[in-house]
Amino acid sequence: MSHEEAYRGRRVLITGGLGFIGSNLARRLADLGAEVALVDSLIPEYGGNRANIAGIEDRVAVHVSDVRDADSLPALLRGHELVFNLAGQTSHVDSLHDPYTDLEINCRAQLSILETVRHENPEAKVVFASTRQLYGRPEYLPVDERHPLAPVDPNGVNKAAGEWYHLVYGRIYGLRCTVLRLTNTYGPRMRVKDDRQTFLGTWLRRAVEGEELLVFGDGTQRRDFTYVDDAVEAFLLAGARAEADGEVFNVGGEPPVSLAELAELLVELAGGGSWRLVPFPEERRSIDIGDYYADDSKLRGRLGWAPRVGLREGLERSLAFYREHGASYW
Amino acid sequence: MSHEEAYRGRRVLITGGLGFIGSNLARRLADLGAEVALVDSLIPEYGGNRANIAGIEDRVAVHVSDVRDADSLPALLRGHELVFNLAGQTSHVDSLHDPYTDLEINCRAQLSILETVRHENPEAKVVFASTRQLYGRPEYLPVDERHPLAPVDPNGVNKAAGEWYHLVYGRIYGLRCTVLRLTNTYGPRMRVKDDRQTFLGTWLRRAVEGEELLVFGDGTQRRDFTYVDDAVEAFLLAGARAEADGEVFNVGGEPPVSLAELAELLVELAGGGSWRLVPFPEERRSIDIGDYYADDSKLRGRLGWAPRVGLREGLERSLAFYREHGASYW
Repeated sequence: MSHEEAYRGRRVLITGGLGFIGSNLARRLADLGAEVALVDSLIPEYGGNRANIAGIEDRVAVHVSDVRDADSLPALLRGHELVFNLAGQTSHVDSLHDPYTDLEINCRAQLSILETVRHENPEAKVVFASTRQLYGRPEYLPVDERHPLAPVDPNGVNKAAGEWYHLVYGRIYGLRCTVLRLTNTYGPRMRVKDDRQTFLGTWLRRAVEGEELLVFGDGTQRRDFTYVDDAVEAFLLAGARAEADGEVFNVGGEPPVSLAELAELLVELAGGGSWRLVPFPEERRSIDIGDYYADDSKLRGRLGWAPRVGLREGLERSLAFYREHGASYW
Repeated sequence: MSHEEAYRGRRVLITGGLGFIGSNLARRLADLGAEVALVDSLIPEYGGNRANIAGIEDRVAVHVSDVRDADSLPALLRGHELVFNLAGQTSHVDSLHDPYTDLEINCRAQLSILETVRHENPEAKVVFASTRQLYGRPEYLPVDERHPLAPVDPNGVNKAAGEWYHLVYGRIYGLRCTVLRLTNTYGPRMRVKDDRQTFLGTWLRRAVEGEELLVFGDGTQRRDFTYVDDAVEAFLLAGARAEADGEVFNVGGEPPVSLAELAELLVELAGGGSWRLVPFPEERRSIDIGDYYADDSKLRGRLGWAPRVGLREGLERSLAFYREHGASYW
């Protein structure tokens, strides 16, 4: 049975399900015949957006609920065979201004989710969306899963704790948990209102509007990018494959590019706009991690994952999406 | 100026100051002429005990307060030149039964302490009591500071987060923080009521009372032990030396011994009692880390630390202490 067939008729819950990756995952799961429920707080500053499930509204159940509300978790989690746990506060800068909220969502709520799974639903498979932010400033490149963890901001600390709870609950209580450490993921349905979650969202919007893209620093920082469909594929593989239980996988993508190259490509593809270098805002400089790109050979080797959408094609699809649907995302 | 002279007249706060290591540190600081204030919640299940400051009551200020009470922290932390941050929930088994309390103390309260230092007292030096528990089951021995972190229980996860907040706040906001990762620390004033914090406390008590010591498993697990005066010396060095800022140090001790050897030695020194092997309780087995001993060459090399009290002498002193003061600790 392929990992895709494995989802037919399965009861699947996605936390953060109206968000960028969660909603793309939901769309794919609905198409694969899964019974999909979504939990999302729809907090305006985060990534949840009802427009993200346009066209599949009648095929998914939506619970507007916050994972910090531990009392609601038993009823939400009970009965699901798979939990894709994507709810998170993803803004690094926000975690400087309000580290407590970041802690409550990325750390404490994760503990609540796992305590609930343990007591209510111990057979469920859990796939957790973690982040390359745990590694901090890379000591070597590409960064594999053995790279030391050294988060540079409260968000990284709290995400590390959230990830470890999954691994610890797996080991102590036998829960089946898999961790995916994501890098820059991009594509349709990402938040493009501001640069809270990612600079690339703002860039996409500015490129569509023919405006100038601002590149912090000297533009030489190299990063890797995952098109959202490829990230979704990693979640599906992790959820379906028993050999992923208890494991941590980097999710990478195409070869890394510098931010200046990326800006140049985006302007070229958008057929308008421009970009320029500006000094790093002080606050962002203090938490910048410099060059990063993932060694994702573990994910490729063990689960047979491979990215299918290159950067150029992914950006073209993204621009096309926002040209058509911008009104729901601006 | 020696690191000891550096404390004369300095205003020093110790969180967890009525606990085992905190109170031994307080006694030493009072003798060195520091102006010492202690914060302790005196929660019965934790290590705080008023008997721990017997004889120095008039030379230290005691605030019965809980570090989870963020509103009290500004008034407590303001004006101190050094903060020895030792308040913590240290029971691994308790962290299984109540992971939320562990999170509140070891994770969230640490964030509150650092936010408060940042806003109220950014010049203060902070020394944080971390733990070898962050390493989990060692991949190699002895364990140096570069060993991967892989906590095995919620306590280890939360302590890791607490430690990282210190390092992150150091890097982002310029706070002067040092982290000491402690191994088994023992000596006078440790909690011996039960084996909540450490098996060795119970063993000391049973040895004094001529009772049988229970050794879990096959007794071959090897561990290292730090006599509390040597641990105190590590805190004093870390607090006084600028080159310790932003650094993490393992604190070890004498060469490791097996738990069976330790039990045998303790029975010999106590001149009575006995020991025997018993199967690991299931819950403890699930979080046991096996053999552990620290490579503490960084602490020795950079700060000139060296343990002065060997295991035999340390156990003798401990037994003598509890023979005399048992009534306050049983």
